[in-house]
Amino acid sequence: MDALRKRWSAANSLVCVGLDPEPAKFPAHLRSTPDAVFEFNRAIIDATADLVCCFKPQIAHFAALRAEDALERLIAHIHAAHPGIPVILDAKRGDIGSTAANYVIEAFDRYGADAVTVNPYLGRDSVQPFLDRADKGVIVLCRTSNPGAGDLQDLPVDGRPLYQHVAEKVAREWNSHGNCALVVGATWPTQLREVRGIVGALPFLVPGVGAQGGDVEQMVGHAKTGDGTGLMISSSRAILYAGQGEDFAAAARAATLSLRDAINRCR
Amino acid sequence: MDALRKRWSAANSLVCVGLDPEPAKFPAHLRSTPDAVFEFNRAIIDATADLVCCFKPQIAHFAALRAEDALERLIAHIHAAHPGIPVILDAKRGDIGSTAANYVIEAFDRYGADAVTVNPYLGRDSVQPFLDRADKGVIVLCRTSNPGAGDLQDLPVDGRPLYQHVAEKVAREWNSHGNCALVVGATWPTQLREVRGIVGALPFLVPGVGAQGGDVEQMVGHAKTGDGTGLMISSSRAILYAGQGEDFAAAARAATLSLRDAINRCR
Repeated sequence: MDALRKRWSAANSLVCVGLDPEPAKFPAHLRSTPDAVFEFNRAIIDATADLVCCFKPQIAHFAALRAEDALERLIAHIHAAHPGIPVILDAKRGDIGSTAANYVIEAFDRYGADAVTVNPYLGRDSVQPFLDRADKGVIVLCRTSNPGAGDLQDLPVDGRPLYQHVAEKVAREWNSHGNCALVVGATWPTQLREVRGIVGALPFLVPGVGAQGGDVEQMVGHAKTGDGTGLMISSSRAILYAGQGEDFAAAARAATLSLRDAINRCR
Repeated sequence: MDALRKRWSAANSLVCVGLDPEPAKFPAHLRSTPDAVFEFNRAIIDATADLVCCFKPQIAHFAALRAEDALERLIAHIHAAHPGIPVILDAKRGDIGSTAANYVIEAFDRYGADAVTVNPYLGRDSVQPFLDRADKGVIVLCRTSNPGAGDLQDLPVDGRPLYQHVAEKVAREWNSHGNCALVVGATWPTQLREVRGIVGALPFLVPGVGAQGGDVEQMVGHAKTGDGTGLMISSSRAILYAGQGEDFAAAARAATLSLRDAINRCR
């Protein structure tokens, strides 16, 4: 989380570029390349690195392609070519202690990620092996960006929705190493404001701008911290597939710049 | 779920052998084998296949070892050498629609699993891509076996704990294709009985016997269906590492037989 705070300031950006490779959407000239998943993502990374506070590869997109190897090399590339930019492995892991320890090895040792997203449903002991890595970030699902988020997350517990209890547990109990953050979707401005009121300056990973339709001004206004930071605002498809031709990386850069500036106008 | 019901009857067994490879616990003669993860698990599978209703590889244990390839080959081996035995990929996945679709590809197309475990925290639309695969099983976390399970799962919603609402949603709303099951830990006999009362004959995947200490007699008595089935009772470490020598597969077979018979005495 220290690296993230430094990066917010150094890059003057709250933008997180999500790396969700979908080869059917790659530019035609890349599709037949043997290492297309790596080459596509590397081009996006190199074209946007100076504009972002972090990168967020989504592991399902690599697993569906049998591209674990490309994911390992991409994270190594970010660290080598763009030092100081944290990498979040978006994996939403959650399992009991002994298995969680293996997910910790997967995320932090194998892939070398700086932070990982986790699911709180199994309770604190399932997250503890992640929390114990004080040098790494643990980003807990709170109020997710999808339409059905409320099915469980809004169920009323003692008069308040479940996600508020998750927010409170993470901020007051799970964050003893100061390495926690929360996922709160851009699509829920009211909930962003409520969670911000509960957790103080805890960082938020905010998916759901761009393709999912979250409004930037309302979201930043409701979710930022007192110093105008506190957010990793994640956009994937709207940046990755901004251009379809050989200039796709330049188009991704333009989309990132536009999002960064739109956010910065509201801080 | 049909394959599972057939297998309960054909094998006269409710035992699910969990495949959680930990190379440090492998017998010494296997540890230096180049393909040790595959060879160890294959030996366990071949020694226990006639005694089980299903196998359950836990994906974190393979991912931490960069052994995705061994996992693919093991599931293919089960299907080829032991037809009719369902394979559950224990992955506890949960993500929004577009990403969930990639997890569906990972579990069912890449690995060829017959069922997968999923986390309900993100709501129904996050599980829908799994539910839509009517030919595959979707096993939803309800009351997990770990000590901290209650942190969220026991929170009171309208006077009843959250896990009971999950059980009800899955049984009444999510199970329209009849392909759902629930994870309920053997360590919680009272909760097993309560969930059984809510969901009728919905199958349970029951981890937590053996190494985690769940009591077989109490568990089976509280969780079985009217016809003495309804359960996939999962044991991993107590079977896999029952023997430390060259006869480890025979020791695993003896442990599986003993568990199967202990369960069958209570049905």
